[in-house]
Amino acid sequence: MPILVMKFGGTSVATLDRIRRAAKRVGREVANGYDVVVIVSAMSGETNKLVGYVGETSPLYDAREYDAVVSSGENVTAGLMALTLQEMDVPARSWQGWQVPVQTTDAHASARIEAIPPENILAKFGEGMKVAVVAGFQGISPEGRITTLGRGGSDTTAVAFAAAFEAERCDIYTDVDGVYTTDPRITSKARKLDKIAFEEMLELASLGAKVLQTRSVELAMRYKVRLRVLSSFEDNDDSAGTLVCGEEEIVESNVVAGVAFSRDEAKMTLTEVADRPGIAAAIFGPLSEAGVNVDMIVQNISEKGLTDMTFSLPIDQVQRAEKALSEAKAADDIDYVELLTDTDVCKVSIVGIGMRSHAGVAAKMFSTLRDEGINIKVITTSEIKVSVLMDRKYLELAVQALHDAFGLDQVA
Amino acid sequence: MPILVMKFGGTSVATLDRIRRAAKRVGREVANGYDVVVIVSAMSGETNKLVGYVGETSPLYDAREYDAVVSSGENVTAGLMALTLQEMDVPARSWQGWQVPVQTTDAHASARIEAIPPENILAKFGEGMKVAVVAGFQGISPEGRITTLGRGGSDTTAVAFAAAFEAERCDIYTDVDGVYTTDPRITSKARKLDKIAFEEMLELASLGAKVLQTRSVELAMRYKVRLRVLSSFEDNDDSAGTLVCGEEEIVESNVVAGVAFSRDEAKMTLTEVADRPGIAAAIFGPLSEAGVNVDMIVQNISEKGLTDMTFSLPIDQVQRAEKALSEAKAADDIDYVELLTDTDVCKVSIVGIGMRSHAGVAAKMFSTLRDEGINIKVITTSEIKVSVLMDRKYLELAVQALHDAFGLDQVA
Repeated sequence: MPILVMKFGGTSVATLDRIRRAAKRVGREVANGYDVVVIVSAMSGETNKLVGYVGETSPLYDAREYDAVVSSGENVTAGLMALTLQEMDVPARSWQGWQVPVQTTDAHASARIEAIPPENILAKFGEGMKVAVVAGFQGISPEGRITTLGRGGSDTTAVAFAAAFEAERCDIYTDVDGVYTTDPRITSKARKLDKIAFEEMLELASLGAKVLQTRSVELAMRYKVRLRVLSSFEDNDDSAGTLVCGEEEIVESNVVAGVAFSRDEAKMTLTEVADRPGIAAAIFGPLSEAGVNVDMIVQNISEKGLTDMTFSLPIDQVQRAEKALSEAKAADDIDYVELLTDTDVCKVSIVGIGMRSHAGVAAKMFSTLRDEGINIKVITTSEIKVSVLMDRKYLELAVQALHDAFGLDQVA
Repeated sequence: MPILVMKFGGTSVATLDRIRRAAKRVGREVANGYDVVVIVSAMSGETNKLVGYVGETSPLYDAREYDAVVSSGENVTAGLMALTLQEMDVPARSWQGWQVPVQTTDAHASARIEAIPPENILAKFGEGMKVAVVAGFQGISPEGRITTLGRGGSDTTAVAFAAAFEAERCDIYTDVDGVYTTDPRITSKARKLDKIAFEEMLELASLGAKVLQTRSVELAMRYKVRLRVLSSFEDNDDSAGTLVCGEEEIVESNVVAGVAFSRDEAKMTLTEVADRPGIAAAIFGPLSEAGVNVDMIVQNISEKGLTDMTFSLPIDQVQRAEKALSEAKAADDIDYVELLTDTDVCKVSIVGIGMRSHAGVAAKMFSTLRDEGINIKVITTSEIKVSVLMDRKYLELAVQALHDAFGLDQVA
């Protein structure tokens, strides 16, 4: 039997009625001839409640106990989903992470899956069971303790199972009906993509399109797991949603697949830094140790051995960055004249594998923004992405203009 | 280090504040020099919520999935209790049933504990851990699936751990402050007992004094686990609550330890049954198969080869009993003229190990009831108990009169 992995997020299993609706979709795939591995999240709100309990009990909690507590929501949904399927005469049973076992590292609260031996579940499929319902987000450490994979970890669970079981596809049911060319709240011209390449999805996921957890896309790319994102709230046929797949499956596509953005950015500049070897390490080492996620970095042209160093970071990490840098300065590890902070910026990016073979994409982006009178503060590029930092007030204008300029409302 | 088992029921861990209060008691015992095994129930209301989910999803549920779902409440409390203790600088960690492992039969939803290998937890005690917090009510079957022990099962978990760890004592923290000579709602003269023998507690537990699960008392008696019942809502010293122990520890005691009662009883009589060998089996076999818990049985003197057979049962099982008996009659397995049902009766019992060495206890009970004008319908006796069935309207009167007659408001 071919195997299908189906993952249902928290809103898709938020009530017993929704679990029933999800179970019907599973039953349909069983009728289509699949053996199905279903990955479930906790009923929406449950994990937040448990995280709240832990935080209130112990602000600096032992992550091993955190995991033991917050993993329990998925166990409830897994059992209820199995019962619902049984009620529909679909042979099913639930598995908790440790029962499979989903073997992970011991990095509690953000563990990584190391292996999923498929034998136990395959044996049950061999005995006539049609659906294995697995509690997502959780696993077991080498020491036999419960681990969790971090927020959104159920997506990663689903992809890892699809890889371990060589599934034909991994369907991620969520509360949106696919991946869009940009956020439809910014422009009504946003269009749902039928297909998107792993690399593009990875850039979009890490740029803040919160459809899929970044790690799940990385894993899917690595193991060539075809991922489909679709809504659990609509009746959809086999071509519904968005397929995340290898680029060889995408015959025709726009040069740019989508416009992504990140609203809450900040920009910091250290002025008159000594331009000597090792200066970047001296600046960004302490920032990394302080847990600051530096994103874009620009070093200006050096004059008289001094340079300005500019970087961007999430706005809620500014205080931490300022503390780390002033401490480094006090310790004489780095020297600068001024530390300038701008918390009124955002980042807008265009993403597309087509850029690799098309020249002039970045130039077209810059001229489009110029025509709108938008000043670009920092630029970074990768093979399939161009990102620019700008004043936050221009975000909507920039996204709309770029969406139009690259013809994203039209299929290529 | 001597080991102590402390069990906290659902109301004792109903909120984070109450968990904190319970943790303080645990910390005090650690300061007293004990290594402590803490058994926790789910936060009150949680298990009912989960049982409700299961019942709504699948009225005739798969008990294996039921267990997977309803066991999750205890996991949450165990983790939170461990975190709370850590916040108080008491080295602690949580264990779920399968981690210990608590090995049970595969009788899902009412499994029995078969073994609790103490090695894992003892090793941690050896490394300096002071408290092992264990999720009560759950275990793991030989097939590696999660089991639960049935309602009130956390008491049984606690006693089983006390036996496996040869604990000095097993303290059951609950919402009452001990075992009383009778229900204080019936007579204000009811007195808390300092000590009670296992055998007496067993009779009281099965007679409806809902302080402890019957199976937990059986287990405590078998393994000579000293059980202490006390309130988690009062500050109490070491002599607080009621100690359930071997009778050799009870130096002085009243002949009668307590007056128990069961309010919702019914009495059924089959008239003119053929008095032949095997007739009792023919009647009570079908009742047992129908799940009817027959309690007291009286067979009248036989006249002309015919007899009347009377028995008592819980009132909510009357319909089931009537169905089973009429079916047995229709199948010619038994023959009777009339089936008389009286649903207005209750059972009142006196319990005490002193009865074994004191004559005239039953006679005194009967004369006390006679003096109050109470008619006795059925009598049963055991070595340490006399029970009588009477009209329900006499319940309070009978309990008060017996409590006075045996001087239960006075320490012996």
